Amino acid sequence: MTGRLIAVGTGPGDPELLTVKAVRALGAADVIAFFAKAGNDSNARGIVASYLTNGAQELPLLYPVTTEIHRKHTDYTSAITSFYDASAEAVAALLDAGKTVIVLSEGDPLFYGSYMHLHVRLARRYQTEVIPGITAMSGCWSQAGLPLVQGDDILVVLPGTLDEETLADRIRSVDAAVIMKVGRNLPKIRAALRAAGRLEAAIYVERGTMAAGQVVPLADKTDDRAPYFSLVLVPGWSSRP
Amino acid sequence: MTGRLIAVGTGPGDPELLTVKAVRALGAADVIAFFAKAGNDSNARGIVASYLTNGAQELPLLYPVTTEIHRKHTDYTSAITSFYDASAEAVAALLDAGKTVIVLSEGDPLFYGSYMHLHVRLARRYQTEVIPGITAMSGCWSQAGLPLVQGDDILVVLPGTLDEETLADRIRSVDAAVIMKVGRNLPKIRAALRAAGRLEAAIYVERGTMAAGQVVPLADKTDDRAPYFSLVLVPGWSSRP
Repeated sequence: MTGRLIAVGTGPGDPELLTVKAVRALGAADVIAFFAKAGNDSNARGIVASYLTNGAQELPLLYPVTTEIHRKHTDYTSAITSFYDASAEAVAALLDAGKTVIVLSEGDPLFYGSYMHLHVRLARRYQTEVIPGITAMSGCWSQAGLPLVQGDDILVVLPGTLDEETLADRIRSVDAAVIMKVGRNLPKIRAALRAAGRLEAAIYVERGTMAAGQVVPLADKTDDRAPYFSLVLVPGWSSRP
Repeated sequence: MTGRLIAVGTGPGDPELLTVKAVRALGAADVIAFFAKAGNDSNARGIVASYLTNGAQELPLLYPVTTEIHRKHTDYTSAITSFYDASAEAVAALLDAGKTVIVLSEGDPLFYGSYMHLHVRLARRYQTEVIPGITAMSGCWSQAGLPLVQGDDILVVLPGTLDEETLADRIRSVDAAVIMKVGRNLPKIRAALRAAGRLEAAIYVERGTMAAGQVVPLADKTDDRAPYFSLVLVPGWSSRP
């Protein structure tokens, strides 16, 4: 009997934003796997710490490289592909031994999550369950109390890694936008919003739902420093009554 | 002392997909308010039923009209605006009396949720908290085990109420799409996907995470019957390793 693979979405940061199903799964798992940068704590592991009460084995999956090499360089893609292959085999070995293995994923596992690299390698070979999580964007617009989309509104979700022209074009043609992966891309995102005529409407959310979170109109933010855990929201619902 | 307004996202249907925070709030509320069509049960109320253990007062907010009048007809907008005004005042009266009032919202409150109509009328007047919920789309792609977006992927969320040409144009220009509010719009959505060359990739999910849920490639679905609780997903991540 091989074991079960369970992806658990940890939500955006507040441990109380895990689902009841996720908490139950964490209490029954044999192994808890999570991605992290070597030398850093895992954010996902930190979010669920208080629920790890049954002494499960832990399996850190440590990225050999993150931002030191450009992500489109072949050295990066080669190193990262080997890493995902090896991570999948490490998880597979535990599943073959009959263990129930949880892979933690910040936010929602199948929405820009690292877990997806394991899913495509393992989900056809093993019994797999995905427990959804509150996305970072949902945590952020809830914390901001910002009605995002209603009725016939069209929403676009844009990685901040896209070029300025693409960002501006896409923002211009929709009712609402969420811009992820802000970090060092903030000056470019700001310029794209200005070009699209939406800078005044944009809200900047830093570390949404975590301690020391911050919600400000982007136009009022005077610096360009932004951590990885930040988002820009452009709300829709212009026909609001 | 006025009371607190708390919006609670009930998630997509499985009661275990409520957050820990939502369950805690439900156990401590004085009043549970929810929208429903007159004569119908409230889906949101049904999802949280097992958590309503403290005998809270219930406040059904019953739509005077749903699909009998076209939603762009002035009779509809006038009736529905009066209804939201009256609903907000009913909640406000309880808040003025010092009660903690929860408003249930299927999925996530600020993402196409009816709660938003109360939020814009009350959030500036009363202490308000929004507890996010798992969106229907997240529940559906998790149940389908469908990796949705990764890396630089652009996602668009489209209400199925849009016209065929708009749907096709938007689907053509993105990596991934979620089409909400399928119901009677399924034939049109199917035509738009075909026009955009994405019909073969589309997945139809009915009643995701609920009992009797269904996940099938849309191309394999031979009829055009679809309940309101159905979605079409077009996954991205074409550069998958």
